[in-house]
Amino acid sequence: MSESKGKFEAGLAGVVAGQTAVGEVTQTSLRYRGYEIADLAAHATFDEVGHLLLHGELPNAAELRAFRGRVQAAMNLPGTVTKAIDAMPLETPPMDVLRSVVSLLGHYDPEAQDNGREANLRKSERLIGQIAYATGYWCRKVGNNPELSPTENATHGENLLTLMLGKNPSVLAGRVMDGTLVLYAEHEFNASTFTARTIASTLADMHSAVTGAIGALKGPLHGGANEAAMRQFLEIGKVENVRKWFDDLEAHNQANPNRKKLIMGFGHRVYKHGDHRAAILRDWSLKLSEETGQRHWIDMADALQKIMLERKNIHPNTDYPAAHAYYQMGIPIPMFTPLFVCARITGWCAHIMEQCENNRIIRPGSEYVGVPPREVGAIANR
Amino acid sequence: MSESKGKFEAGLAGVVAGQTAVGEVTQTSLRYRGYEIADLAAHATFDEVGHLLLHGELPNAAELRAFRGRVQAAMNLPGTVTKAIDAMPLETPPMDVLRSVVSLLGHYDPEAQDNGREANLRKSERLIGQIAYATGYWCRKVGNNPELSPTENATHGENLLTLMLGKNPSVLAGRVMDGTLVLYAEHEFNASTFTARTIASTLADMHSAVTGAIGALKGPLHGGANEAAMRQFLEIGKVENVRKWFDDLEAHNQANPNRKKLIMGFGHRVYKHGDHRAAILRDWSLKLSEETGQRHWIDMADALQKIMLERKNIHPNTDYPAAHAYYQMGIPIPMFTPLFVCARITGWCAHIMEQCENNRIIRPGSEYVGVPPREVGAIANR
Repeated sequence: MSESKGKFEAGLAGVVAGQTAVGEVTQTSLRYRGYEIADLAAHATFDEVGHLLLHGELPNAAELRAFRGRVQAAMNLPGTVTKAIDAMPLETPPMDVLRSVVSLLGHYDPEAQDNGREANLRKSERLIGQIAYATGYWCRKVGNNPELSPTENATHGENLLTLMLGKNPSVLAGRVMDGTLVLYAEHEFNASTFTARTIASTLADMHSAVTGAIGALKGPLHGGANEAAMRQFLEIGKVENVRKWFDDLEAHNQANPNRKKLIMGFGHRVYKHGDHRAAILRDWSLKLSEETGQRHWIDMADALQKIMLERKNIHPNTDYPAAHAYYQMGIPIPMFTPLFVCARITGWCAHIMEQCENNRIIRPGSEYVGVPPREVGAIANR
Repeated sequence: MSESKGKFEAGLAGVVAGQTAVGEVTQTSLRYRGYEIADLAAHATFDEVGHLLLHGELPNAAELRAFRGRVQAAMNLPGTVTKAIDAMPLETPPMDVLRSVVSLLGHYDPEAQDNGREANLRKSERLIGQIAYATGYWCRKVGNNPELSPTENATHGENLLTLMLGKNPSVLAGRVMDGTLVLYAEHEFNASTFTARTIASTLADMHSAVTGAIGALKGPLHGGANEAAMRQFLEIGKVENVRKWFDDLEAHNQANPNRKKLIMGFGHRVYKHGDHRAAILRDWSLKLSEETGQRHWIDMADALQKIMLERKNIHPNTDYPAAHAYYQMGIPIPMFTPLFVCARITGWCAHIMEQCENNRIIRPGSEYVGVPPREVGAIANR
């Protein structure tokens, strides 16, 4: 589209790609449909937030009960999908498992090809339950954990832990897990949500859009960062090593400007003065450490955070405390990003429905920077 | 990202989202790495174009032989993937089949998680062969066609027809099929390619990016349009009905401004004065009709095209003649969009590699238009 050449922002940074009523991100706040994230984290469960994002309003007690009932009823998979999961090699990255599971689920959802608002709402609620169940199924399979059914009166976070680990979590662990889902649920036009909206903008179906979003979330520059952050804590090992670890990495990066190592869990495209979610989750993880006796992860994280602020003036993002919170709960590291999927499915589906209701196909232009025009020559002369 | 609010173009129309050396689209031309599409359509096979897009240059005879050898060697699927296909309900939309197949293929590709250039090149070539094979496999399964192996010296287009229909095509049909693949191979930042680039920009893997792109291509505003165009020709029935069909549709749309019916196969975000590819393919399809005796489709299409130009001043796009060309070859309509995948996989993979080599995460902003800030109240008061 060379004729419309214009100013071009790498990665569309700062470019407004559309309107949304789902969530609002500013440098100083994050709101889901008008509610400040700290308010929701303190006073709402993930089930309430899921209802808010999909239906537009926080539920009353009866609406909440009905919503949870529908989501929990969907905590299952068609037999052919569990068979397909059982055939997957154990070393398959869990995000690839979820990508395939959601794609396969589209084959069996009776409303898969219906993009109407009511059908999309029902599919969204089913996907919340199915994705939680599939995440638990894979975690149990790899860890050889016993199977335990979700509990009717439990929150989604508690049930997720039950499904994954095959045992009922402590009250605190269930609360913190549910809280991480609240924090991860929505974040306007991040890469995976924008992927989902772009796919939906061709009038493709919800399962296609969610399958694509899972692929985008997998990347280490997006959802994969929570796993990378935990591997980093394990590499550092103990709080006394933090300073030397940082100095060694800096020395490496100065000596190897083309192979720089990244420090994971820091920085954000939007928040330049810190991510509110990170502070909330850090405090929950600290509380959890009183129960798990694993305070050293938080001490280590705090020490690195302090150095990063002094030396680089950047703050941790949510993935940073999510790493030590999930690790303390006994969740295997490769399951961290799937937990992000379990939460963000609500934001994705809300955005997909919004895109469908006021659609224009997302089709940007590009600036051509390749070889100039040339002619096809005979193959013998090449 | 309300603080960076700016001018906002619905669907990113006319917004330059990045640079590319793969293809160039202007209002008057389409070039793949510098070669004009008409020149390529006349003088190159799809195999040559695939080599051009992925490796950057048209191949010489030895390179072409080696490229075809690698692609044809990949015309197969792991046993667990064919088992998964066999378990899919026969009514599954073929685009959903391909979406799941590519996602599942990621579980078995030994280089799936390697984003290096060489690994990505090898995966791209494998995907060309695997996707052609899977398309043939599904078409044969649904049509209960005999299985026939690809031929070493045949073009990719000829082999695709062989794999799909279980018989060797006429020379002309093979030539036209291969030509449609050339025309469909690449089109800079269309919705599916942009989806693939967005997924790749999180540093997720190629299979994730291609899986997402298939979902985007499925939509009737994108790849799905070739199927919709053929259904429209079938609805019209014969050339004598064209005028009345058009007038009836216009009357319906005037009476029902909120439920307007679209005329499929017309218009394009970029080309306002016609799509060069459409004219090339229309002539091939006309030639094909001398062999198939199905000239009436082209007559019907020409008549509607004339009315659309007079009354709406818009031109057909490639999907319009692709519909009657594929139909004449005996390809079932639901397989039309999968053929688009068989071609565009080359453009997608070229763009994914380009994104990986000079990456910045694609993360636009949005304008918040939802409810103003509010506070979470007690559930009893809702």
